[in-house]
Amino acid sequence: VVTHVDEQRLRSVSEKVAARWTVSTHQPIHYEIESVPGVLDVDNLRLVDFTTDGRRLVVVDDAVAGLYRERIEHYFSSNTREFRLLTLPGGEANKNDAALDQLYAGFESFGLKRRSEPVIAIGGGVLMDTVAFASSVYRRATPYVKVPTTLIGLVDAGIGVKTGVNWKSHKNRIGSYDAPSAVFLDLSFLNTLPARHVSNGLAEILKIALIKDRDLFELLESRGPGIVRDDVDWARPDAALTSIVQRAITGMLEELEPNLREHVLERKVDYGHTFSPVIEMASLPALLHGEAVAIDMMLTTAIAHRRGYLSGEERDRVLAVNRSLGLPSTDDVLTEELLTQALEDTVAHRDGLQRTPLPRGIGQCTFVNDITSDEIATALGDIRGAAAALAGSARA
Amino acid sequence: VVTHVDEQRLRSVSEKVAARWTVSTHQPIHYEIESVPGVLDVDNLRLVDFTTDGRRLVVVDDAVAGLYRERIEHYFSSNTREFRLLTLPGGEANKNDAALDQLYAGFESFGLKRRSEPVIAIGGGVLMDTVAFASSVYRRATPYVKVPTTLIGLVDAGIGVKTGVNWKSHKNRIGSYDAPSAVFLDLSFLNTLPARHVSNGLAEILKIALIKDRDLFELLESRGPGIVRDDVDWARPDAALTSIVQRAITGMLEELEPNLREHVLERKVDYGHTFSPVIEMASLPALLHGEAVAIDMMLTTAIAHRRGYLSGEERDRVLAVNRSLGLPSTDDVLTEELLTQALEDTVAHRDGLQRTPLPRGIGQCTFVNDITSDEIATALGDIRGAAAALAGSARA
Repeated sequence: VVTHVDEQRLRSVSEKVAARWTVSTHQPIHYEIESVPGVLDVDNLRLVDFTTDGRRLVVVDDAVAGLYRERIEHYFSSNTREFRLLTLPGGEANKNDAALDQLYAGFESFGLKRRSEPVIAIGGGVLMDTVAFASSVYRRATPYVKVPTTLIGLVDAGIGVKTGVNWKSHKNRIGSYDAPSAVFLDLSFLNTLPARHVSNGLAEILKIALIKDRDLFELLESRGPGIVRDDVDWARPDAALTSIVQRAITGMLEELEPNLREHVLERKVDYGHTFSPVIEMASLPALLHGEAVAIDMMLTTAIAHRRGYLSGEERDRVLAVNRSLGLPSTDDVLTEELLTQALEDTVAHRDGLQRTPLPRGIGQCTFVNDITSDEIATALGDIRGAAAALAGSARA
Repeated sequence: VVTHVDEQRLRSVSEKVAARWTVSTHQPIHYEIESVPGVLDVDNLRLVDFTTDGRRLVVVDDAVAGLYRERIEHYFSSNTREFRLLTLPGGEANKNDAALDQLYAGFESFGLKRRSEPVIAIGGGVLMDTVAFASSVYRRATPYVKVPTTLIGLVDAGIGVKTGVNWKSHKNRIGSYDAPSAVFLDLSFLNTLPARHVSNGLAEILKIALIKDRDLFELLESRGPGIVRDDVDWARPDAALTSIVQRAITGMLEELEPNLREHVLERKVDYGHTFSPVIEMASLPALLHGEAVAIDMMLTTAIAHRRGYLSGEERDRVLAVNRSLGLPSTDDVLTEELLTQALEDTVAHRDGLQRTPLPRGIGQCTFVNDITSDEIATALGDIRGAAAALAGSARA
């Protein structure tokens, strides 16, 4: 109810009018993430809301277009009255204004209805973030559906409500919180995913393990190396692999749900995301998102170890699992200066404090506000030393 | 609570994994609109949250800069530790990407903290819409405060949660729903507002009167002409003028609050906004927003009259009040073709139906989905005839 209080009407010299109105309500947020094996099977109508007479605008990135264009066209031409396929260039460097303009033009020329024709995004994290942002602001909110095709999309970018594009060199500087209409997970897309991109997704899974799920860490320790090395058939994942993916998703959602718009700035899932946004953008296009996150996690693991939060044995297990997942622990782009700048930007993003999660043993974390430049330098030396030792032993 | 149901695990040929997660929560929305006479008085700390040691980024349009730059600089240099004033070009034609880029660059170089340094927008509707949108997406939501300096800002753009910029020729095509941290109303800004812009705001007040508040209509009938004609001192408004402004605000908020994100597309406050977005953009920069709204209202008043929803006497009263408020009833830009195109775009915006409010008598409205091209043509003829007759009688 709108409260209007004309309470303070002052009959003074100036007879100033003082009044106050209060607007108070709440916005329900509800969405479902559904595992839909064979989401592009032509007789599976989940992606068109069980109907076949709708219109759909479908957006993919060029990698998905290269691999799945015919299947997608066959699916939608069979199951809609009208559809259009838009292809965006993939990659972090294309997550920008130009992609938004391309999307708005596509929405406009398709004559997208405002509520009943959800945009369908099929692709990796960059594609989903970009399409979700464009949808969230087109006509002030157009519904959209996410179908992640990468592992990082399945366990991270695809399942939350955060949308965004980069602005100049600043990662995800422009974005929104906007829940998808639906998310459909089909692991079989991963059968066409290059190994490096499997590792990229495993970084976000490792993150969840390190901050809150020791059992998941142990699953990664035992089953993880095989995920990268083996010829996994993602359409028929074994129990351990299924468990790894599902625990990661559940763990992530448990953290997101009570804090969807990040009113609490101490977020466990920000682990690995203190230094990595600047690392990733500075290295562009060398490091993938998950690789930059892994480097951040290894650096902060070293900080945590120096603080006594992790034993040497725990630190070494973490470094070994990270390595076994095909992830880097450092990169030439890292300098003390870059890392200091990264921390400063994160402090602005976290409203004036570091609020940086650090591991406390494996599977728990704590938040700190007092990381110093010296600690960063020492940790960088530690990680570089470990990497050099490993390279040496590999050569020996 | 995140629900994870691994319910449909199928041990069939492919041993497909089917699982489902549900994310369900709600987002509280609360904001206050406060009448703060003398908001720029140096001893009034409302605009800096009662503190004087903060940092503030202030954004104004060039009209406000021309009139109030010194007062604003004096206020903030006295009451903040650090502040920066950004000036954007005003006017509908500048409500675009270039303005957003200018804002993002300003936010970035000021090093705006994410939560505790609300951006302060002081200006008209275009300025507030643009700053509010930029804030709502910068770092996925940066708080902002609105201080409207125009009548249309005070009763319409300033008090709601809709933000937006134009995209190419499409009005407010890109935007968001994002509640301000606070809205401060100071009528005394209107003492420097040109008469045409007072009329511009009166159009939105007339809208509220026509669709839901017959008493407000009668107040406009009696007091309205004087608002435009007289030398009103807005710092000391009389009771009738105060009542007109406050009823308009209360009426608007009553409509907005239960439907803040427009989940219901039948909105009474969309009266005058069926044809006007396209009329306004087609005439750019000739017609102000309120003028385009007035033209739309007069056209739909004529449609309602032809349908028998309004008597001839009621229609004539509406036309007379509109005229007495200094508002146009038609414009050379109007053609049957343009109006048909406008209705089509509105149908997409309202998800496939016209959902057009039409007056039912004065102070009530009804929604229709069946306005025809013939009705539009007839109404256009009616309104043009009335305008011509009036021009003739004025010449005679």
